[in-house]
This record gives sequence, C-alpha cells and structure tokens, in this order.
Amino acid sequence: MRLSNIAKRVQGQPMFRLKQRIRELEAEGRNVIHFEIGDNHRLPPNNAIKATILSLLRGETHYTASNGMIELKKAIVNSTYKEYGIRIQHNKILVLPANSAIDFVIRCVCDADAEVIITDPCFPTYTSVLSYTGITAVPVVLSQANNFKLLADDVIAKVTDKTRLIIINSPSNPTGSIIECVEIKKLVEFCLANEIFLLSDEVYSQMMYSSQQCWSPTHFDHCDTAVILLKSFSKTYSMPGYRLGYVIANEQLIEKMGLLFQTIFSCMPVFVQRAGISALENGQRYVNQNLRYLKGCRDLMVEGLNEIPNVSCNIPEGAFYVFPDISETGLTGEWFAHKLLEEQGVAVLPGINFGDSGMFNIRICYATEKKNIKEGLKRIRKFLCT
Amino acid sequence: MRLSNIAKRVQGQPMFRLKQRIRELEAEGRNVIHFEIGDNHRLPPNNAIKATILSLLRGETHYTASNGMIELKKAIVNSTYKEYGIRIQHNKILVLPANSAIDFVIRCVCDADAEVIITDPCFPTYTSVLSYTGITAVPVVLSQANNFKLLADDVIAKVTDKTRLIIINSPSNPTGSIIECVEIKKLVEFCLANEIFLLSDEVYSQMMYSSQQCWSPTHFDHCDTAVILLKSFSKTYSMPGYRLGYVIANEQLIEKMGLLFQTIFSCMPVFVQRAGISALENGQRYVNQNLRYLKGCRDLMVEGLNEIPNVSCNIPEGAFYVFPDISETGLTGEWFAHKLLEEQGVAVLPGINFGDSGMFNIRICYATEKKNIKEGLKRIRKFLCT
Repeated sequence: MRLSNIAKRVQGQPMFRLKQRIRELEAEGRNVIHFEIGDNHRLPPNNAIKATILSLLRGETHYTASNGMIELKKAIVNSTYKEYGIRIQHNKILVLPANSAIDFVIRCVCDADAEVIITDPCFPTYTSVLSYTGITAVPVVLSQANNFKLLADDVIAKVTDKTRLIIINSPSNPTGSIIECVEIKKLVEFCLANEIFLLSDEVYSQMMYSSQQCWSPTHFDHCDTAVILLKSFSKTYSMPGYRLGYVIANEQLIEKMGLLFQTIFSCMPVFVQRAGISALENGQRYVNQNLRYLKGCRDLMVEGLNEIPNVSCNIPEGAFYVFPDISETGLTGEWFAHKLLEEQGVAVLPGINFGDSGMFNIRICYATEKKNIKEGLKRIRKFLCT
Repeated sequence: MRLSNIAKRVQGQPMFRLKQRIRELEAEGRNVIHFEIGDNHRLPPNNAIKATILSLLRGETHYTASNGMIELKKAIVNSTYKEYGIRIQHNKILVLPANSAIDFVIRCVCDADAEVIITDPCFPTYTSVLSYTGITAVPVVLSQANNFKLLADDVIAKVTDKTRLIIINSPSNPTGSIIECVEIKKLVEFCLANEIFLLSDEVYSQMMYSSQQCWSPTHFDHCDTAVILLKSFSKTYSMPGYRLGYVIANEQLIEKMGLLFQTIFSCMPVFVQRAGISALENGQRYVNQNLRYLKGCRDLMVEGLNEIPNVSCNIPEGAFYVFPDISETGLTGEWFAHKLLEEQGVAVLPGINFGDSGMFNIRICYATEKKNIKEGLKRIRKFLCT
C-alpha cells in the first residue's frame, strides 16, 4: 500500500530508538546510568500532583475549552508578568504540548517553499518537523570556541526572501548556552523590519545559573507581532509526562494555531491543566530549590568531565545539559555513545542527533542524583582509560 | 505578518464556537439543556480514575515509550481478540488521541492531490482535516429515507485514480446508522483489489442496540493491509477528557504514524494510559450498563421527537445521537439551533456541521439524564408550537 510523501519523509527522534535499546539492556539485568533524556529525576511539585488528583475526584473528565481553561490562562498572564514584566491578553495564549506547538508554529507560518533558520546544534524537534513537512532548514553553525553563543549577524547573513521563521532557544538544549541581550535585540529588530517570525523557545528560561536581564525577545516585541514565546511545564516543574505547555503570540497566529489544535486534539485534559495552574501559582519555591540543586550537578559534571583525558567541556550557563567535545578520543559521538552504553552501561546521546556540527560531541543530561553523576563519570573514565 | 496556506484554510470545529455561546448564556444565569456535545454525562469507570490516581502517586510523571506502553498494548490485544476475534501484533498498534489519529492517517496516506471518500453527513473532524490539508473530500450523500445506510456501490461509484482513502463510521456520528455486513465486505474487497486504504472509525462499536455480527472491516482484512481500525476510550468509557484512543493498522503505516506522533507529541502520559488499561481490563460491566441506559434514552428521545409536529426522527441503531429532519418547520437546522438555544435554552447542533445534506437536520446527543431529555423535549415542543 502506497504511503504519502509525509510518511516517506518523517523520521522521528533518534532518542526514542536509544530508549528502546536501554530498555532491552535493563530487561537483561544491566545497570544503566541515565544521562540520555532531558527528564529530571525529580517528581513534580506535590501541589501539582494533588491538583490533578482532586480534579479527577471532582469528575473533571469531560471536554473543555479548546484553547485552554480560563483559570490556566489567568495563571499564565500572572506568571508572564512576573517573569517578563509584560501583561498579555487571553487571546494571545494557546495551551498545548510544547512539541505540538513547534509543529503548529512551523505549519501556520511556513508554506512548502519557505526557509526556516535554526541553529546547529539545536533541539531535534525543529529539524524533525522541518524534514517531514519538506520545509528547508537553514542552519547557523555554532562554535564551541565561542561557548556556542548565537550571533545575530550570523543569522541575518542566512536570511533570504524565503525566510519566514527564525527559531532560537536560550538557554539552549543541547549546549546550555545563553544568547546575549544585544544579539536578541538586534534579531527582534531585524525580524520586525523584515516581517519574519521569531520563535523563542524558552522552556529552560527558569534554569539560568547567573542572573541576566532582558534576555528574552518578548521584552522588545511583547509577542505583539513577530515574537512567538514557547513555554513548557516539562522542565521547569519536572512534569514531562503531563505533556503540557503553551504559546504566547500575536492573536491572528494564535487563532489559527488554536483552530489547528481544535481539529487535531480538541482540547487538553482538564486534570492536566489543573496541575499547570497549581505549578504556576505555587511552584516558585520548587523552581528555586531545583535550580540550586542543578547548579551543583552542573559543577560536578563539568569538573568531572574535564578531568577525563580527551574530553573537553564548556561550562553551560543554563538548562541541564552539557555538550562536551570528545573528538580527541578519536571516536565520533555516535560511536562513543554506542560503545559507552554497551560496555559501561552509561546512556548519553550522540551530538549528531542535534545537528551535523555535533559529530564529535555527546549530550549529557545531569538532572539526576549526584551519586549517579559520580558513578557515570567513573564509568566514562574507565571506558576511555582502559 | 503573513501566515501559511494551512493557516488560511484551517477552520476548526463549529461546535466549539457554540460551546462558547453556551458558556456566556450560563454565565448570565440561564439554564441550558445540553444536547449538543457527544459527551456522556456519566463519569468514567471508577477503576479507571483510580488507576490514574495510583499512577500519579507512584510518580509516573516521566516520558514513556512513544507508541504506547507495553501493558496498554497487551490490554488492546486482548480486547481486540474479545471484540473482533483477531489476534494482532504489538507493532500494529499506535496509542494516541483518536482525533490525532484521523489527522495522522490522512496525512500519512494522502498527498495534496489525493481524494478521500467520506459520507455526508459525517463526523466533522474528517472534513476539518481534509480542508486544512487541502486534500479533496468526495462525499457520498446518505439518505434519511434509507435510514442513512451507506451502500458500497455508492462509494465505489465515486472512486477515481486519485482515491487513496475511504472513511467509514459505523455506528455513525451523527446518524447512529450501522453499515450492513454485506456492504462492508464488498468495500473491503474493493479496497484490497484497488490498493485503497479503508479507515473504519469504530469509536461507537460498543454502542449498538441490536446484536449484529461481522459488521467490522477488520473481520475481512485483520488490519493486515488496507483496513485501519480506529478506537477511542472517549465514548465507550465516558472519558473524553482523557484524550485517549488507538489505531490498529498494517505495520508500515503504524511505523510512519508513530514517527509523526513522536515528532509532534513525544508520548501519551503514563497516568492516562493506566486508565486505558484499567478500562479495557475491568470496564465491560460499565459498558453493558451504559448501553442499557442509553437504549432507554434513545427510545425516550425518538418517541418524544416524533410526537412533536414537523419533526421526523429515525430510530438509530447505535451511537448516542439522533439526527431528526426538521425541514417541515420551515427552518434550516442552523436557524433552528440558534433560535432554540436563545429562546428556550436547549443546545443542539445544526446538521450542516456534519455536511451539506444536513441543512434541514439537527443533531441531538441523548447521553444525559432522562429528566433532561424530558425537559428538553418539552422546550422543543414549546419552541415549535407557541
């Protein structure tokens, strides 16, 4: 039976294949240290879990407003004011899973002949969506020597008359890098002047290890025109299993994305949204504690990696990943990740999953118990030094 | 800012606009009788809610296998054997919201120049997806005089060399009609001979009021080649707020749809899937009780409607809707639904939401308390007779 071009192009996320292999090893009784997935070992805030349970006990198992419950939108308005200092209207908000948001933004902004500027390395969902839709991805290669920092001029140099969208992600997955304020400002001004959308994926915005001001494009456009702000509960509140996020953007785009969401999903579960409300309203202490903990993990991981011969690791400024260069080992990231898992039971992702420039990198998520970090480092050393 | 063709074409579901107006009326203190949405007033089975809560308490808030948890797949295998007498492999199953499944099937099977045969009237998601993707919908108009029954020859007459997919829905939303076994068999044979996919939307399969045998295409193809079986927990177990369903189809299609799901959604929440497992394993008594109750509702509704002058209603064989003809009132279904809501506070859907042929019909969902059915009927009579 013949399938469509979309079916032919769709590739999925290599991470899920690796997860399958890990499950097999664990089923065989192997102990595996999990550095592979961007999933904090922590549980969500208690109050969020409790809100879900109470919602279920109240019988909130029916359909609800398609673009998000009013109570959640109110909590988002308050939280956005607290974080960004801007007051947004409800019709600029759409509640949906963050991955779906990336898909919907791209499809509502780009036709098949469009070009989308991304970074290399970047979060793989951007390239997955672009490849299945057949839209051209135009990568701006980031340099480890420059701490993977994105420069506005490098982006602008890639713009053509087909460019409809630029996607940035600060703090970044996989590098943990943060884009400087001056670069952000320049990008927003350029996008406004040239009618190009700027998707700012800020799902790690509450995970920055040094205090920075005005690093978000929302400060310059208030999501009125070109800037699309993407947020998620998955990382900030360690609730990836809830599949909850939201987008703030100009109301025309939100309306169209909302109609697409309505068609494909109907609505997000009420009991899931209740957890989001609770997290936004009562989660700040959790977020602060988590950040302090993660900073300790980062330091432990970076120091440990840099003590291992032939491994070179930058100090990331945000998120919960490191993206060390392992080229001196003589291995590609893919081979390194494969052998490390099979020989030592440490799961990491090959850098190439995030773009061609990551061929000699691996990505490690350090949001785990410190004893796992120590054990994982010991095994990596063993892997490379015996 | 310029948006894409998809954004220009997407229309969403008119039902959600009506829901908005209903919320406004209710906020003003109006009492509204809800016949509009396909959402049973019942709560899900207790054991399903309990399974969700226990899952949350166990901390199952992390990512999971993208195409469905192994435990849920096992429950689906058993349930499919019980209902259809066929044993399916795990790699023929994809767990996802049923609405997303419709979108994914269409996009993985059809390119932009394809034609998809649907019925008129039909479930609006089919036409919503086709209209935003720009794929041509080819409707087969059903006749109320023939109890809205689909005939294979009417479908086959519409097939061209561009036809890639036929969508059937038995029992049907909005008519409650069931396709006869002989028609199903003919359709499957035609699809197999002509390499056309047949999506069989059977989300109401456990809501049939007369015992019928072999009414599903799965009996003739076992989902090996052309037949794609769509199931949902929303109607069978009154859990639409869970957004949980699944598809069974040939493994190549399931693989591609799975990659698309992975890209756009990552995975379904574990705690949602736990409810699905529990419903499939321990929900049969609930389903039987519900069916008995709904049969009483149907009889009450049909008799009541047929006693009202100028309203003519068939006896549906399945699902939980009636689709009465109100042409003798001199009103279109749209005008009827609008006036009935504003004047008498009874919410029904205009038949035209389900296709052009429904211009002089309305759709009523009778899955509600009997006292609401009686009150609603009284108000409709008042609306038409005063």
